[in-house]
Amino acid sequence: MDAATCLRKLQYVGVLSFATVDETGAPQVRNISAIHYEKDEIYFFTARGKDFCRELLSDGRVQVLGYTKYKEMIRLSGKAAPVPEERQKKWIDNIFREQPYLANVYPGDTRKIGIVFVIRDAQIEYFNLGVRPIFRESYTIGEGNVTLKGYQITEDCIGCGTCVQNCPQGCIEPGQPFAIQQEHCLHCGSCFEHCPVSAVQRR
Amino acid sequence: MDAATCLRKLQYVGVLSFATVDETGAPQVRNISAIHYEKDEIYFFTARGKDFCRELLSDGRVQVLGYTKYKEMIRLSGKAAPVPEERQKKWIDNIFREQPYLANVYPGDTRKIGIVFVIRDAQIEYFNLGVRPIFRESYTIGEGNVTLKGYQITEDCIGCGTCVQNCPQGCIEPGQPFAIQQEHCLHCGSCFEHCPVSAVQRR
Repeated sequence: MDAATCLRKLQYVGVLSFATVDETGAPQVRNISAIHYEKDEIYFFTARGKDFCRELLSDGRVQVLGYTKYKEMIRLSGKAAPVPEERQKKWIDNIFREQPYLANVYPGDTRKIGIVFVIRDAQIEYFNLGVRPIFRESYTIGEGNVTLKGYQITEDCIGCGTCVQNCPQGCIEPGQPFAIQQEHCLHCGSCFEHCPVSAVQRR
Repeated sequence: MDAATCLRKLQYVGVLSFATVDETGAPQVRNISAIHYEKDEIYFFTARGKDFCRELLSDGRVQVLGYTKYKEMIRLSGKAAPVPEERQKKWIDNIFREQPYLANVYPGDTRKIGIVFVIRDAQIEYFNLGVRPIFRESYTIGEGNVTLKGYQITEDCIGCGTCVQNCPQGCIEPGQPFAIQQEHCLHCGSCFEHCPVSAVQRR
């Protein structure tokens, strides 16, 4: 798997969930399908009067989630920025051409209330709960960074194997120290809770 | 439409998007299907070691989004709280019984790393972009409140009709003042931007 394949999968899903944070610090999430995909960028349309637009302009952080028909979760985290004023019309028209339903929602000239944002630098997380062991991986586009999540076993490990017995996915390998196979880890915290010598720490 | 119907529709969708805010104030959104529905409550399972759990325990605000096969968006906003300790086992077992795939992810006793949250007081927003004019409505469950969004036309209206000409949905009615049919409003802000006397304000 790679970032480009994830973007194509998101494109096939079509309707994605876009999460932002409002001015009170509360989570907000909406379905958006007015999206244009480039190889390593995504452009999307909204209207300038919507809370969604205000949240993007004031903070910009956005997380985009799609669930494929193969039961894969693909999550893109990045910053959205409006495309430059002189290219807004081009991008609005592009997105309306690709998604004819939009002209029913915003007929004629009313699409001018629209604004197109682009996400260029992002982390993409791929997560498949339908295989055993589960599988996850992270990728980047543009200047995006991968944030390490989950847990790791430190040198304090005494090799007792308690973590192995309690791991739902059987993804901990013996060794000095024992090691979590990160690509198969649920991040459930069971090893962290059960380690008798607190040798497991959050990454 | 009503709150109970919206909850049933979410149940049919199955896999929902749960949005929270992390400790840096960034939006987070995941797919969750380990959900049990009551008439006016939703229970859901996660694992204690996940960032999702930490975000719920430290803030609790959550927004849950589902997109139906009839192209309806249903969004529930509320606070999630863990069910009392003495009832955790009952609820975990209930959810695992209803969703057998969970026992593949957390086999045997490993489900004990789980925690069940409940949402009781919430606002539900129904939004259908597939009809013309579009249709939206809000409902509550428990002690939830409806947050007014979008725009309204004030007494400063001079009746010029500029807003009507620029409304994508044709949902503004003449009168003194002119009035927005809120159930058909996109919240796009076109009337707000075009009003020559600034008679339109955010609600």
